[in-house]
Amino acid sequence: MKKTIVVIGLGLIGGSLAAALKGFEDYEIVGVVRRQETADYALEHGICDRVTLDAGEVIPQADVTYLCTAPATVIAYLREYKDAFQPGSLVTDVCGIKTAIMEAASVLPEGVDFIGCHPMAGTEFSKIENSFPELFRGSHFIITPRETSTQAHIDLMGRIADYIGCSDLVSTTPERHDEIIAYTSQLMHIIALSVCDDAELFQCKGFEGGSFRDCTRVAALDVPLWNQLLTLNADALTRVVVRLEENIHAYRVALEHHDYERVTAKLQYSSDRKRRMNLPGPGQVRLEYDFK
Amino acid sequence: MKKTIVVIGLGLIGGSLAAALKGFEDYEIVGVVRRQETADYALEHGICDRVTLDAGEVIPQADVTYLCTAPATVIAYLREYKDAFQPGSLVTDVCGIKTAIMEAASVLPEGVDFIGCHPMAGTEFSKIENSFPELFRGSHFIITPRETSTQAHIDLMGRIADYIGCSDLVSTTPERHDEIIAYTSQLMHIIALSVCDDAELFQCKGFEGGSFRDCTRVAALDVPLWNQLLTLNADALTRVVVRLEENIHAYRVALEHHDYERVTAKLQYSSDRKRRMNLPGPGQVRLEYDFK
Repeated sequence: MKKTIVVIGLGLIGGSLAAALKGFEDYEIVGVVRRQETADYALEHGICDRVTLDAGEVIPQADVTYLCTAPATVIAYLREYKDAFQPGSLVTDVCGIKTAIMEAASVLPEGVDFIGCHPMAGTEFSKIENSFPELFRGSHFIITPRETSTQAHIDLMGRIADYIGCSDLVSTTPERHDEIIAYTSQLMHIIALSVCDDAELFQCKGFEGGSFRDCTRVAALDVPLWNQLLTLNADALTRVVVRLEENIHAYRVALEHHDYERVTAKLQYSSDRKRRMNLPGPGQVRLEYDFK
Repeated sequence: MKKTIVVIGLGLIGGSLAAALKGFEDYEIVGVVRRQETADYALEHGICDRVTLDAGEVIPQADVTYLCTAPATVIAYLREYKDAFQPGSLVTDVCGIKTAIMEAASVLPEGVDFIGCHPMAGTEFSKIENSFPELFRGSHFIITPRETSTQAHIDLMGRIADYIGCSDLVSTTPERHDEIIAYTSQLMHIIALSVCDDAELFQCKGFEGGSFRDCTRVAALDVPLWNQLLTLNADALTRVVVRLEENIHAYRVALEHHDYERVTAKLQYSSDRKRRMNLPGPGQVRLEYDFK
């Protein structure tokens, strides 16, 4: 008999994940959505094997339940269906914050495993219409297992990461995840938004290049989702914003004082750090480079 | 008889431009480089029709001389060859700053036209090995003509922009160019560099997603080139950095005070601005979206 992965929420991430998971081992991929038109879209586009509007109907049969909604909805699902999950099954999610999710998962009864998950992939577009199975290619797949999570479930997450095309599986604690993600993800969104707040923004049409588009790309974000992500991690995020303010200010002071020796030294220092950190490789390949 | 475009400097931009210009109307594309190995590479890869190490040999025959070097070298070329350019010919450049270049071009004798040019394209990789003819596809092609520039030369720049695949031709003054570019380009580099200055950078490997890679991409910059670009425009750049500091700080205060109504209002405001400004279209298409 086929096993079942229930994917709850077929938005950008859930839709892409369901589509990426199709054909995974001997699992049937079952989508759960709230609106009939999303269900119709999912079936027409072959995003999952089966789709339903009734979570309560499929959760009890799920071997894996993948909660692919915003954090508050994940928390609500955990509370509402805590007694419906199959004993021995795995529940997981895709949220960009993990401490609040892991805490909420403590409502699950003993015997229902929970492993927090955050595939580091996304675009600035939400909804099923923008989902595509290759979204995760080359991305990091971060998990935050419980101390009691079974090795079988951790291994299963590893095979899922591999199947959907992630570059690696990174296991960490929820607290460490949230501390780091404040910097590598949330701060990038604060930057993009702040750049767009500049009074000159609309006067600059016709003068944007790749750096402007890349830096501001994620500013076109899903407000209710990002409101949850940012405010659930506000303290860690505040700390990294303070550090960024200091680093930007140091550049400004060097420029303002026409301290060009200092500018040169700083350019060398920062660009060396970027080169040591990462340069394009799998997952960073851009269309530009493919033209060659 | 064929007309001649001399491209001086076959780095990322010059190499890409020469390659993109091949076959343009009845022009022969002649490259000028400093090192024999660059000349060999250019010929082997068909980057231009002809290549020489001797600028003085080809400049007097050029109908168009395209100076594709860093600003200080453009300025040095203008001084050194001012009497060698063909009367009636057009001299232009590709620098990311325009006021200093247009001032330097005042050394040219009457009868030699100069139109400043800045194709808004690039990658974080320099040198001929990273050049490719499609670099300019979908980019804005900015020109800063003199008041005395001929319509024939302005029209020629328009046909060049079109031929190399730029999305449009934008004509402005050098002062306005430098003011805007401080925001749309130089500030993006200050941000990317400042993000990489964070003490936690190297501890965050494994946690980077698309937003981090996009935001920091340009930090891997060519230090001598960017030192010139930033310091030649330091005052305008200082002003936009101050504005960014204020806008980032406003986000930080809202987060620090857990003022979530304010966070929501700000997210809505900034993301609306981004959507009004631009969303992916030609030139913003990414490999991710091509997977579909």
